[in-house]
Amino acid sequence: MASESGKLWGGRFVGTVDPIMEKFNSSITYDRHLWEVDVQGSKAYSRGLEKAGLLTKAEVDQIHHGLDKVAEEWAQDTFKLNPNDEDIHTANERRLKELIGETAGKLHTGRSRNDQVVTDLRLWMRQNCWTLSALLWGLIRTMVDRAEAERDILFPGYTHLQRAQPIRWSHWILSHAVALTRDSERLLEVQKRINVLPLGSGAIAGNPLGVDRELLRAELNFGAITLNSMDATSERDFVAEFLFWASLCMTHLSRMAEDLILYSTKEFSFVQLSDAYSTGSSLMPQKKNPDSLELIRSKAGRVFGREDKEAVFEVSDTMSAVLQVATGIISTLQIHPENMARALSPDMLATDLAYYLVRKGMPFRQAHEASGKAVFMAETKGVALNQLSLQELQTISPLFSGDVSHVWDYGHSVEQYAALGGTARSSVDWQISQVRALLRAQQA
Amino acid sequence: MASESGKLWGGRFVGTVDPIMEKFNSSITYDRHLWEVDVQGSKAYSRGLEKAGLLTKAEVDQIHHGLDKVAEEWAQDTFKLNPNDEDIHTANERRLKELIGETAGKLHTGRSRNDQVVTDLRLWMRQNCWTLSALLWGLIRTMVDRAEAERDILFPGYTHLQRAQPIRWSHWILSHAVALTRDSERLLEVQKRINVLPLGSGAIAGNPLGVDRELLRAELNFGAITLNSMDATSERDFVAEFLFWASLCMTHLSRMAEDLILYSTKEFSFVQLSDAYSTGSSLMPQKKNPDSLELIRSKAGRVFGREDKEAVFEVSDTMSAVLQVATGIISTLQIHPENMARALSPDMLATDLAYYLVRKGMPFRQAHEASGKAVFMAETKGVALNQLSLQELQTISPLFSGDVSHVWDYGHSVEQYAALGGTARSSVDWQISQVRALLRAQQA
Amino acid sequence: MASESGKLWGGRFVGTVDPIMEKFNSSITYDRHLWEVDVQGSKAYSRGLEKAGLLTKAEVDQIHHGLDKVAEEWAQDTFKLNPNDEDIHTANERRLKELIGETAGKLHTGRSRNDQVVTDLRLWMRQNCWTLSALLWGLIRTMVDRAEAERDILFPGYTHLQRAQPIRWSHWILSHAVALTRDSERLLEVQKRINVLPLGSGAIAGNPLGVDRELLRAELNFGAITLNSMDATSERDFVAEFLFWASLCMTHLSRMAEDLILYSTKEFSFVQLSDAYSTGSSLMPQKKNPDSLELIRSKAGRVFGREDKEAVFEVSDTMSAVLQVATGIISTLQIHPENMARALSPDMLATDLAYYLVRKGMPFRQAHEASGKAVFMAETKGVALNQLSLQELQTISPLFSGDVSHVWDYGHSVEQYAALGGTARSSVDWQISQVRALLRAQQA
Amino acid sequence: MASESGKLWGGRFVGTVDPIMEKFNSSITYDRHLWEVDVQGSKAYSRGLEKAGLLTKAEVDQIHHGLDKVAEEWAQDTFKLNPNDEDIHTANERRLKELIGETAGKLHTGRSRNDQVVTDLRLWMRQNCWTLSALLWGLIRTMVDRAEAERDILFPGYTHLQRAQPIRWSHWILSHAVALTRDSERLLEVQKRINVLPLGSGAIAGNPLGVDRELLRAELNFGAITLNSMDATSERDFVAEFLFWASLCMTHLSRMAEDLILYSTKEFSFVQLSDAYSTGSSLMPQKKNPDSLELIRSKAGRVFGREDKEAVFEVSDTMSAVLQVATGIISTLQIHPENMARALSPDMLATDLAYYLVRKGMPFRQAHEASGKAVFMAETKGVALNQLSLQELQTISPLFSGDVSHVWDYGHSVEQYAALGGTARSSVDWQISQVRALLRAQQA
Repeated sequence: MASESGKLWGGRFVGTVDPIMEKFNSSITYDRHLWEVDVQGSKAYSRGLEKAGLLTKAEVDQIHHGLDKVAEEWAQDTFKLNPNDEDIHTANERRLKELIGETAGKLHTGRSRNDQVVTDLRLWMRQNCWTLSALLWGLIRTMVDRAEAERDILFPGYTHLQRAQPIRWSHWILSHAVALTRDSERLLEVQKRINVLPLGSGAIAGNPLGVDRELLRAELNFGAITLNSMDATSERDFVAEFLFWASLCMTHLSRMAEDLILYSTKEFSFVQLSDAYSTGSSLMPQKKNPDSLELIRSKAGRVFGREDKEAVFEVSDTMSAVLQVATGIISTLQIHPENMARALSPDMLATDLAYYLVRKGMPFRQAHEASGKAVFMAETKGVALNQLSLQELQTISPLFSGDVSHVWDYGHSVEQYAALGGTARSSVDWQISQVRALLRAQQA
Repeated sequence: MASESGKLWGGRFVGTVDPIMEKFNSSITYDRHLWEVDVQGSKAYSRGLEKAGLLTKAEVDQIHHGLDKVAEEWAQDTFKLNPNDEDIHTANERRLKELIGETAGKLHTGRSRNDQVVTDLRLWMRQNCWTLSALLWGLIRTMVDRAEAERDILFPGYTHLQRAQPIRWSHWILSHAVALTRDSERLLEVQKRINVLPLGSGAIAGNPLGVDRELLRAELNFGAITLNSMDATSERDFVAEFLFWASLCMTHLSRMAEDLILYSTKEFSFVQLSDAYSTGSSLMPQKKNPDSLELIRSKAGRVFGREDKEAVFEVSDTMSAVLQVATGIISTLQIHPENMARALSPDMLATDLAYYLVRKGMPFRQAHEASGKAVFMAETKGVALNQLSLQELQTISPLFSGDVSHVWDYGHSVEQYAALGGTARSSVDWQISQVRALLRAQQA
Repeated sequence: MASESGKLWGGRFVGTVDPIMEKFNSSITYDRHLWEVDVQGSKAYSRGLEKAGLLTKAEVDQIHHGLDKVAEEWAQDTFKLNPNDEDIHTANERRLKELIGETAGKLHTGRSRNDQVVTDLRLWMRQNCWTLSALLWGLIRTMVDRAEAERDILFPGYTHLQRAQPIRWSHWILSHAVALTRDSERLLEVQKRINVLPLGSGAIAGNPLGVDRELLRAELNFGAITLNSMDATSERDFVAEFLFWASLCMTHLSRMAEDLILYSTKEFSFVQLSDAYSTGSSLMPQKKNPDSLELIRSKAGRVFGREDKEAVFEVSDTMSAVLQVATGIISTLQIHPENMARALSPDMLATDLAYYLVRKGMPFRQAHEASGKAVFMAETKGVALNQLSLQELQTISPLFSGDVSHVWDYGHSVEQYAALGGTARSSVDWQISQVRALLRAQQA
Repeated sequence: MASESGKLWGGRFVGTVDPIMEKFNSSITYDRHLWEVDVQGSKAYSRGLEKAGLLTKAEVDQIHHGLDKVAEEWAQDTFKLNPNDEDIHTANERRLKELIGETAGKLHTGRSRNDQVVTDLRLWMRQNCWTLSALLWGLIRTMVDRAEAERDILFPGYTHLQRAQPIRWSHWILSHAVALTRDSERLLEVQKRINVLPLGSGAIAGNPLGVDRELLRAELNFGAITLNSMDATSERDFVAEFLFWASLCMTHLSRMAEDLILYSTKEFSFVQLSDAYSTGSSLMPQKKNPDSLELIRSKAGRVFGREDKEAVFEVSDTMSAVLQVATGIISTLQIHPENMARALSPDMLATDLAYYLVRKGMPFRQAHEASGKAVFMAETKGVALNQLSLQELQTISPLFSGDVSHVWDYGHSVEQYAALGGTARSSVDWQISQVRALLRAQQA
């Protein structure tokens, strides 16, 4: 096509193609991740062309041989990029032509760039999601192992950061592990939708050369083929789904990190992070900062709101690092059961005090009020809730009697929560077995 | 608790509770949507308390009777809100107490507000998702019906808004319908995760009164129960998933709307929107604006990035309206097949011209270049691509012969794309049957 | 225009205009906020038409009289909306016509809906931004007053939630107040760009009737007029700017709230929220939750990422409530100076210990290391940092001598930070006077 | 501090510091942009230490000499990074120590990493914003030049993508140029807030060594100093403001690109993009795609919603490329005035027809209706609006007379819009002079 490069009004000089434009348009810096799947996809497509009679057996062999050489160069880091290799697909085909000559020019018959890009991306993501699944399962397993080993440690459960009720430390671990099982369930669903073959869709109208898409599907081991060629080449739902998956998973890890940051403050002192996951300060010699936890929290913000291919690579890397760091943190975290025990205070049993009255027949709303009065009486007198005398309690309700002393036992308190999902030992054991069963089912 | 309301430094007056704070904290303006499911949830919970021995049969009957009355008042719009009904749950319990007295105070035994809120929300969303599924299926069905009826109309397929290749009008419709089938698949998955019962989780530690959560699940017809009480009351993954679902679905509808806005410009003139979905201008008498399409597009932005309960109600309403309007638009849209036909131009067959050479044995990369030369030659001579003489074509490649004239037939062009997913009649029929089969499977 | 409402394929019935479409398109539910400015704008525009010779003096008087009546009805809440008043502008003009007859039809001459909508919105936002400025200044003033009164209270400064260095409580207050002064500076800049008149831009091409836009500007007291009619009616930069302003301001309030939530935990116990800004639990009688702080934090998420007119009204309301609640919180907050003092620990003086060595001539990097060794030695011996004996310190560096005991004084420590912006008393006083001066300048 | 690296439960092996954690925490890959400003900041800080008596003149000279050598290595690309240079600040100090020995260890006295990072970032952004301002001014100037040269070309103005009114091509250019002048105004405001010195704030409490922050300000040529040390080291408002600025500016460029994409479709054919800003298709030989415009549009999405340092570098690069490409596009764009003229159609003068009646005394609302009837009559008869006979028009209103023929002149139509900001030649000239004056004022 003719060049009309002369500038008409002001502006800077422009030649045939503005070099800034070229750089602007190039994706090679990040899509080189795709070198391996691009070779894989091209090998499969050449089989399709062979069946359609557009390549001979000899040509296919020649192409495969050349592509193997291309792959070898990438694997050994000897592949040399040209300045005008704008993407990985162009680069590989250019190199193939150098290696095997004109036959390389037949490989793209009936295939469009869109076709190829989206096929490669799906192949890459399919592989990558398996890796992430495995890392996620590893993290959950570590958490469940730890929950099992530390079932007998009690500490305060918080709502609104205020002490609420005594719970098992394992109950807290499991609350986060259970959230992660939903992430691993969702990742399997995303993988199912990634695992659909678009190849054979051409630019927009489809493939006009009789390529057998079922053969392509089988060659590349996809679960199904796309239904409509226009949709196939343009849709990126699976990218959006993957990024959404990552953002939800990061939200969960971020919440766990937030709790642990708090629990490792001087004021809480429930846990201590391994030095392997801490950093110091360039100014203050005494500082030991929970940087790993803060990074997990801050990375959460990084995975939102992007929908492009570049994001997929970056977010995948982030998720992989985060899952490994989280596993490391959980497996090396030291806990301080004595501080945990010390943080349990009698006012956290105010709900149990109300239940005591409920069991004696008082409607809950009244019992809640009566217990609230006891809390207020203790605060006014400046004593702990369990230090009110029976007489004092009886001024609030005559239903109080000597057995109220049984309320003031944290171990007894948690054992009440035996309904499924609660913090009683039996329920925690049930949770552990449920999560283990889920893991087994998902891994199958 | 003692009040310490005196202001210490500046600021405006504050009484016992700052009235702005009260309004700030109130959710009754939007959570009244939940009145019906709140009654449903409370009825089930009273059965649980009965089985646990905390309510007698008579008390349960009394409570159910009272709750039926509450529901009746809501249904007949005679329910009167008090100024300090901060949310629907408080309002209903306050009213119940007025109706049946102290027994009402037993209903909340062992149940927390968090417990109740999340149970109600899941019940409401479960119902609502069914409605949205039905609307979505209705839209897809309308699209498929239309695609089937108009299979023989050809028009230009565009990439980058430039004319690319001739395709069937039905192929365009199906490209959008297929995208919507993924939305309906995803909605079913979200529903599966919504359909899990949290009730019986208390505030954080679980339920200490022996409530049978399996009985609650059966009463409310949930598919499963939550595993961990802390996670159960705090997690809102299902809300985020629903909002993400809505945003992806809106993205698809928005893209379809964008195409239709373009196709209904004077310059394209492919389709004409029904007056029922158009508006005029207050200034310019001749204007007929595709407002419905623009609203669909603009609503897409509204469903992103929010994660609260209020968003669920608003986004549900939006989705419901949008799906109905989209169905109306598609079912009444007039098309102008003659303008569509006129917009097909010979340069859109340049790819076919390349394939012609491929079929004669030329590698595709060379054929692409040869066809590009023909396009340039035609542009230079100021004629249409199909007006180049055989001699002229032969200056580009000796492989051109008399049968090249068969290339210049749009109907013949689209029929080539017979690989599954392409725009040939057989493939479009296959797509229609595939989407119909999917719909049947999803509705089952 | 002819109606072609018959449905062609499936879908639900559609009449002349789909009622869902009408509701979908209507903005009256939220733009009624604009009733007053709409009347204001119309009065000014009629003056413009008068000068252009398109209205007589008598007609202008008639229109003004009618518009005053419309305003009165809104003010007294007696204005009756019709079902097809799709927006406030239509409603007001419809009502005007009922009141004064055909002359009402002259008011819209040369004015488009876009013209009118954007003028009204700018008028409304200009007024509203003044209110928000005043609230913001009130909050900052309360904070500075408090900072001044409590200058002598020391407490721990944290980084990464780990104790870092002793600082003044006022230094913390001022760190948040200073951030808010940037918000009030930015709000003034936004107001400057809001205060530009678009009226007289018509739909797109401008006003063809000789309306004097300078007269309109003067009538409505705008600072300038827009430069280009297409840009004037379509641009919403000022809306995006306002929403961004709100999101940054909320980020600042949210961070302050986050600190206060932490400081009011049992574990920190530095401050106590007034009951006026706290709530209880429906289940746990002892709970007192910092709900106001959590709401401030959660509202932050609500102001992001929306760019429409509806958002302006909602975000304005939110900001107004949040600023008032924040002022209330700060002015009633109780602090516990004894707990603050108790939380200061000798390891927070490790940096000072390093500076001690620097002052004796040791390069900082070595001093940092030496101080770190002292921290480690104290941890190993299980004593506080200030309990190491001189001999022990001298094993680390011979530069330690008797005067090292002066390091262990928190008051002395903070007084060192006398460079501008630091936490020394003189610097805090300087900050207070700087913020006060800024407030005076902004209010001028 | 003691190492407690042993893993307790499952998980993978961890040594002293988990290597994934180290990589996770490292910022050197992107903050190397800061090498030059880091040297600048350190030189200034050493002057501060000199004045405070903490460095001798000889030590300062030694440090400056060493830092110059560091800068030289970066400039010549010979600087060698160590694996544990976690960021640019560590790297430069490590290298300085290698070059000049222990004196390097004095440079960080009283300075924290936070202090240094934020000072460097502000220095870098200050420089970068100047570059972006210059590019933006260059683009606006190119647009205004072009608007001036092509003032006499008319084409259709669109609303809702439907033809609305005839306007000048220059009016369209100026509508976008005016939007960009707001961006350049805002960028100056952001620069003002970037240009504030934080150095001397230490980690949190300030600087305890008597460093003169005014001297530092003067050395580094900042406009002011920060007020509060805690705020100074933690606030990143200026980053959020810059990113918001970029997102608004990109929105404007994106809208312009959207129009141009449309105008360069075959169906519109108003403009033709230079080959320098177009690309072809790997499959379809005839395609010439407006890729540069699409990239501008898609990059808009990339600058939203991130708030970190990494984003600053990436967004700055994007803005720089986009502004240059946009300037190139505008300066080389070919327009097709004959197609523009052909696209003007008589129905676009329906508003003028209404004004004709208004000028004869009919209220606008009636005139709007009468003109609408004429449009409907013409549509029904299948003729253009200007082909209705006078008799036919008079059946609609007796006010129509022979002079109605003057309405059907596009040139005459646009000349009516002479109110400031309209599309008349005089008004377009006024806009050009206004934008030029603004540019001069901003550049001053």
